[in-house]
Amino acid sequence: MKTIAMKVTLLFICCLSTVTIQAQQTTGKKTMTIPSNKNSNTGITYNTLFQYGVADSFIGGLFEATLPVSELKQHGDFGIGAPGQVDGELIVYKGHAYQTQAKGITREVPDTFKTALGFVTFFKADTAFHISAASNQKEAFDQIEKYLHQKNGVYAIKISGSFDHLKTRAFPPYTQKPYPSLATLIGRQKFFEFSNTKGTIVGYKLPHYLNGLSIEGFHFHFLSDSKTQGGHVLDFSGADLTVEVAKIQNFLLSIPQDSDFMNYNFIKKDNPDLEKVEKGH
Amino acid sequence: MKTIAMKVTLLFICCLSTVTIQAQQTTGKKTMTIPSNKNSNTGITYNTLFQYGVADSFIGGLFEATLPVSELKQHGDFGIGAPGQVDGELIVYKGHAYQTQAKGITREVPDTFKTALGFVTFFKADTAFHISAASNQKEAFDQIEKYLHQKNGVYAIKISGSFDHLKTRAFPPYTQKPYPSLATLIGRQKFFEFSNTKGTIVGYKLPHYLNGLSIEGFHFHFLSDSKTQGGHVLDFSGADLTVEVAKIQNFLLSIPQDSDFMNYNFIKKDNPDLEKVEKGH
Repeated sequence: MKTIAMKVTLLFICCLSTVTIQAQQTTGKKTMTIPSNKNSNTGITYNTLFQYGVADSFIGGLFEATLPVSELKQHGDFGIGAPGQVDGELIVYKGHAYQTQAKGITREVPDTFKTALGFVTFFKADTAFHISAASNQKEAFDQIEKYLHQKNGVYAIKISGSFDHLKTRAFPPYTQKPYPSLATLIGRQKFFEFSNTKGTIVGYKLPHYLNGLSIEGFHFHFLSDSKTQGGHVLDFSGADLTVEVAKIQNFLLSIPQDSDFMNYNFIKKDNPDLEKVEKGH
Repeated sequence: MKTIAMKVTLLFICCLSTVTIQAQQTTGKKTMTIPSNKNSNTGITYNTLFQYGVADSFIGGLFEATLPVSELKQHGDFGIGAPGQVDGELIVYKGHAYQTQAKGITREVPDTFKTALGFVTFFKADTAFHISAASNQKEAFDQIEKYLHQKNGVYAIKISGSFDHLKTRAFPPYTQKPYPSLATLIGRQKFFEFSNTKGTIVGYKLPHYLNGLSIEGFHFHFLSDSKTQGGHVLDFSGADLTVEVAKIQNFLLSIPQDSDFMNYNFIKKDNPDLEKVEKGH
């Protein structure tokens, strides 16, 4: 099944590249829309965002990894995540999962490797375009925004090509329990700067209403074609980058069942209007 | 397919009732756990909470109904929701959908009827118990809480029996656009008081981390056995009520695709820790 899925994906990407380049040549900025195949005969549901774990509790210190990558990959061949003890960063690309550690190593991880927080999708682009040049991440995002027509839409996004410059980060593992808030560990991040590297940026853009449960805005991890460079993307620049976008209509949250999660003290977010309507007064 | 599913459900409920009563007789408060069947041979996924729409935007005034009940029922045979223009309250029970209007009418609605916000599940209880007596809703909730062992768990809950007293409400339709916040319309609610009525209370208990996107806490609608009484439950009392609980491990959000939703101004919820970690500084 997996082999078929990969073949279909590869075939699709080949077709897409050809058509995209043609569109690009004639119009410069034309968006190409391919009908979405949410349920194919292979039984795969494309373009659902599957999430394991809750962003707020992970950031709040639930660093224990509880989901094997094998299970994460059942829900997507494309995505990002966090290893246990925030031991670096995780990326899922073409059905393989890679960890980038703070010591500078990027490696494929086995199916038994576990994640604490993961976001994956069976990625099938419905829009593709080129960025002719972007001198930093903000410029690239501004260009991408023009193709994301819906403010409250959820998008899976793939940016591939040769990056003039790319900056990533990875956290070193934090093993002392109880784990603190990840925000207090920000000073422990290790940064990586790559020049003239070919690879793929994988991630999502999410709307406000998913923030806290998930992570709003653009959120990307990187994997070089050589599979030796990666991390959480902080900045990049490049020319002639290919951007593929898949619009997500369904968000599937898998709720961790371990006792740490079940006992975590989420902050109650006051919502007086909602409460008033529910209580009737 | 639907017929088979209903037969299976009915059979299951019959077995469950027998066993439950036995457990009740011997221990008074014993919880019975039945293994969850998330994927049966029928292809049905039990005990996923499917949600169409976002609570915050609905409460904020997105009253337009955009999902046909036929589609909602593809994701569950049990649940609650809101008709368009908040024209009363919606309940899905045993695969049928019923609307209770402010003018006091409860009726089954056709598959073409649309909902603005809906929550459904293919309900399969994994815990069942009796409440010997509850003189009000709070007392009943306190007793139910004892069986919901996980603070951050998501639960679908069914309460059935003869209710000494039951109070519900329904909003009258609001048709003037642009729609205001539902909280400003709270004075327009119509209340209903029922005495000695047999029926079923259908709904959920959700944790803090889903609030805003969904609705935290207990949230119930009612349907009488006669199918003539219903509404959003505000209070109830009764003796020997049967409570069935299904633990939910997956939450599937279907994102509305209409332009009203896509352009809605969700309030950005500040989350400085999350932002710091994502930005790396």
